[in-house]
Amino acid sequence: MSETPGVMTKGRLEAFTDGVVAIIITIMVLELKTPVGDHLSDLQAIWKTLALYAMSFVYVGIYWNNHHHMMHVVHRVDGAVLWANMHLLFWLSLVPFTTRWMGEENFAEWPVAIYGFSLLMPAIAYTLLSWALIRVNGSDSPLARATGADTKGKLSLLLYVIGICATIFWRPLAGVACYVAVACIWFIPDTRIEKKP
Amino acid sequence: MSETPGVMTKGRLEAFTDGVVAIIITIMVLELKTPVGDHLSDLQAIWKTLALYAMSFVYVGIYWNNHHHMMHVVHRVDGAVLWANMHLLFWLSLVPFTTRWMGEENFAEWPVAIYGFSLLMPAIAYTLLSWALIRVNGSDSPLARATGADTKGKLSLLLYVIGICATIFWRPLAGVACYVAVACIWFIPDTRIEKKP
Amino acid sequence: MSETPGVMTKGRLEAFTDGVVAIIITIMVLELKTPVGDHLSDLQAIWKTLALYAMSFVYVGIYWNNHHHMMHVVHRVDGAVLWANMHLLFWLSLVPFTTRWMGEENFAEWPVAIYGFSLLMPAIAYTLLSWALIRVNGSDSPLARATGADTKGKLSLLLYVIGICATIFWRPLAGVACYVAVACIWFIPDTRIEKKP
Amino acid sequence: MSETPGVMTKGRLEAFTDGVVAIIITIMVLELKTPVGDHLSDLQAIWKTLALYAMSFVYVGIYWNNHHHMMHVVHRVDGAVLWANMHLLFWLSLVPFTTRWMGEENFAEWPVAIYGFSLLMPAIAYTLLSWALIRVNGSDSPLARATGADTKGKLSLLLYVIGICATIFWRPLAGVACYVAVACIWFIPDTRIEKKP
Repeated sequence: MSETPGVMTKGRLEAFTDGVVAIIITIMVLELKTPVGDHLSDLQAIWKTLALYAMSFVYVGIYWNNHHHMMHVVHRVDGAVLWANMHLLFWLSLVPFTTRWMGEENFAEWPVAIYGFSLLMPAIAYTLLSWALIRVNGSDSPLARATGADTKGKLSLLLYVIGICATIFWRPLAGVACYVAVACIWFIPDTRIEKKP
Repeated sequence: MSETPGVMTKGRLEAFTDGVVAIIITIMVLELKTPVGDHLSDLQAIWKTLALYAMSFVYVGIYWNNHHHMMHVVHRVDGAVLWANMHLLFWLSLVPFTTRWMGEENFAEWPVAIYGFSLLMPAIAYTLLSWALIRVNGSDSPLARATGADTKGKLSLLLYVIGICATIFWRPLAGVACYVAVACIWFIPDTRIEKKP
Repeated sequence: MSETPGVMTKGRLEAFTDGVVAIIITIMVLELKTPVGDHLSDLQAIWKTLALYAMSFVYVGIYWNNHHHMMHVVHRVDGAVLWANMHLLFWLSLVPFTTRWMGEENFAEWPVAIYGFSLLMPAIAYTLLSWALIRVNGSDSPLARATGADTKGKLSLLLYVIGICATIFWRPLAGVACYVAVACIWFIPDTRIEKKP
Repeated sequence: MSETPGVMTKGRLEAFTDGVVAIIITIMVLELKTPVGDHLSDLQAIWKTLALYAMSFVYVGIYWNNHHHMMHVVHRVDGAVLWANMHLLFWLSLVPFTTRWMGEENFAEWPVAIYGFSLLMPAIAYTLLSWALIRVNGSDSPLARATGADTKGKLSLLLYVIGICATIFWRPLAGVACYVAVACIWFIPDTRIEKKP
């Protein structure tokens, strides 16, 4: 594992990210309160919480998968990348909190809007991270070529903003629909990167 | 650590899985409530909870060991494998929740059935993961040869289904016996893989 | 990172152990309840809990350091080693639970004895793990030569047993003194291994 | 990944540190209690807690980044380094606890002073760790040359001490200002190391 002198390697950045994301994703299990009573119908009472947990699991999973793909094609990291990554992790770590609030307040207007905000901020942070990575790896790096126009990323940001506005000015369910749409367009990992070495 | 260009390596998938499984296995400790009182008999009051914790520890440990063995013989992963692995982790992360419910409701019918369901789903997810791995590594890969007819895997699925049905239509203890039987057949790590490089 | 075919490498075993031990050691922070009141004397009320946390932190830290040293000199692991390691982690994961009980019950007889038991069991598990490692790495391996008579290990087991008996038949403080003695003899990492490659 | 015989490698030390820091940083999310009520103003009630969480996230993030930079330029670790690192992790693991106390007691005198103490101790531990690393890697190692006079480190220790004194003898807000000043001088990762291989 020869290291180019003076160039930090990405290994620990990946390991730390894996650790934080693993905790974020499993912390949400701790939120799950066991039903009172021992019948199947008692489980139905927490059905919505379970669905919310699954939904946020998918969002965090999408970020991890895309992070995996993005880091796979880069070779250099610097201090700015470390902080951009830390910034992404900060916003991701708030997702369990906003998920819980939205669930407890039964998809009320503001909790749904704030949930959207807590999904929008990691998306912005992820974009900043990709910029920091392109800056240090060069605009002719595989990452720069792979991300290209970054239609998916821009579309996500737009959909989150629309979802937040729809929640506040129209109705929460419209916002949730926008958030789900973002999950759908990212669910398929970034094949642009997977194909090009 | 030369990487074949365009081929994702398994390192981070393993690291992320290790992190999530480590958290799942230790989250269950948090469930343990300290006994009220300072005598040995006070500890006996939580004896059943301790046994349950040990049981779920073994189940999760079995999955980690088998995952270790399976990943050991593969060399390539792709986007489908990442998601199949995430799917497995999702179901595993629910095990502490169902363990707790079963304990709190004192091995009542439905909690035991749902516990079985929460063991059946990771088993199905594990099978899907092995298919995804064989698809990307080739049907002539060591994994494909090692898993072969996969008698253990099929038997596990069957025993879980029998256990769930026995719980619902007959009695919970019969279901628990089926679950324990699955643990026994998997306790010995998959020697088929260990032997063949 | 060439792997001898058919021989499992120790990397993931180490990573998984690191994850579990990291969680065990930090879970104990969650036990710490913030003092009621904002004066320094309010902090003194939880002084004993803080000391207990530090004590268990040192015990778990000793195990991690020794595990690090032991794994450093071995090269092969097999299924038996995986399970011996899982067994060690199981007992270690109970330490936060017994630490909390001992603290809550104010160093009463049985909680102190059970705490000693929860330290004795990882010590036994660690010995079993070293045997499993010697079995697969050969009795002429660096580990086998390094552990040799294993005076420290045997002395630890003896001191824990004496401590537990002293707690039950005489007084808890005598037991605690024995436990602290074990920590002292292990605090210095196993220099026998560090010196010999 | 050839290892010089008899020389412990830094890999596991980094991995364990990453795990513990990842947990410390995300444990603080668990502290966040969801607001009661579903309006934006209900979120404002926990605004201060959110800011505190962000502040401690930055502190722990600074330590991780600096740890990353420091370990990047060293090649050898020994038993003393392992314990110096464990000592650093111990003090870092208390940060969520002191953060919570300071928040609950609304920036009262003693909680703010103790928070400063819980930031001062990791700073001292970090200095000890760098000494232990220089001792084993040689005073002509890149780390020794990079840290040099260590103005930042000494300034941090001084600022923490001033902050604690200011809190006790003058007012808490002056102490908080000192702590924030430390964060500012460390926010930029140690470019001295990044530049020199």
